[in-house]
Amino acid sequence: VQRRSFADAGCPIARTLDVVGEWWSILILRDAFRGVRRFDDFQQSLGIARNVLAERLARLVEAGVLERTRYQERPPRHDYRLTDAGRELAVPVIALMHWGDRHRAEPAGPPRLTRHRDCGGEIHTRFVCEACGTPVPAAEVDVLPGPGARAHAPR
Amino acid sequence: VQRRSFADAGCPIARTLDVVGEWWSILILRDAFRGVRRFDDFQQSLGIARNVLAERLARLVEAGVLERTRYQERPPRHDYRLTDAGRELAVPVIALMHWGDRHRAEPAGPPRLTRHRDCGGEIHTRFVCEACGTPVPAAEVDVLPGPGARAHAPR
Repeated sequence: VQRRSFADAGCPIARTLDVVGEWWSILILRDAFRGVRRFDDFQQSLGIARNVLAERLARLVEAGVLERTRYQERPPRHDYRLTDAGRELAVPVIALMHWGDRHRAEPAGPPRLTRHRDCGGEIHTRFVCEACGTPVPAAEVDVLPGPGARAHAPR
Repeated sequence: VQRRSFADAGCPIARTLDVVGEWWSILILRDAFRGVRRFDDFQQSLGIARNVLAERLARLVEAGVLERTRYQERPPRHDYRLTDAGRELAVPVIALMHWGDRHRAEPAGPPRLTRHRDCGGEIHTRFVCEACGTPVPAAEVDVLPGPGARAHAPR
């Protein structure tokens, strides 16, 4: 997928899409969220060409969302683990997935379910107020200009 | 921005990016979340060419996330309002914004802040378990195959 890079744009959403706004990158992250670490396991799960997978993994490492870790010395073997920044992508990526499940559903049903490990309950993504600790409906979230507002004007 | 359409791909994340994975569409939605409705107000906020804005608005209407509403009869005037589906995009779009604010920060600081209208507290996006009602850390979210898992293999 060739497209313009968003990286230089003065918008945090655009800069995030520059990391995750690509088909294979998102599927790699989705697999990483469910515990996949090894090249061959990603390859088997995704059915992706090895050279394409290697290129996407390298890009995610470069972006700081995966790290390449040696897990065996002889012979040397590496796997790919989520960094803290990568783990934090779980909320937006799974929120996109849930929106698609609701509004672009396929007849077969959702390809992936998200469950709370402790109680098996269905996971949703919500706004939460860090001050009062309560879930907040979208209609009660104010989006206000921040200190970088001036730098934000698109070209 | 020309790129391959994700719409036919068997993945709810990909189908969602097909709606929002584009620079102007996301900025239009961001403005809509903070209450912008009229063509001229979007145009002024975004500094976007009128033909481009018209095309992106039409696409968001077609996708069912905005609706074009006549708000005045004589002369006839229309504005663009979020549908329920559009309002639900606030969580993934703002979650992408927050990730960018944390991990791709600019020196000037975040261009937009999100605050709880009632108490002024900072808004975060979180996983919440609908069964037990508690916020759930990403490490305790299980991603499991769903009924549509077979249809999910990418090409």
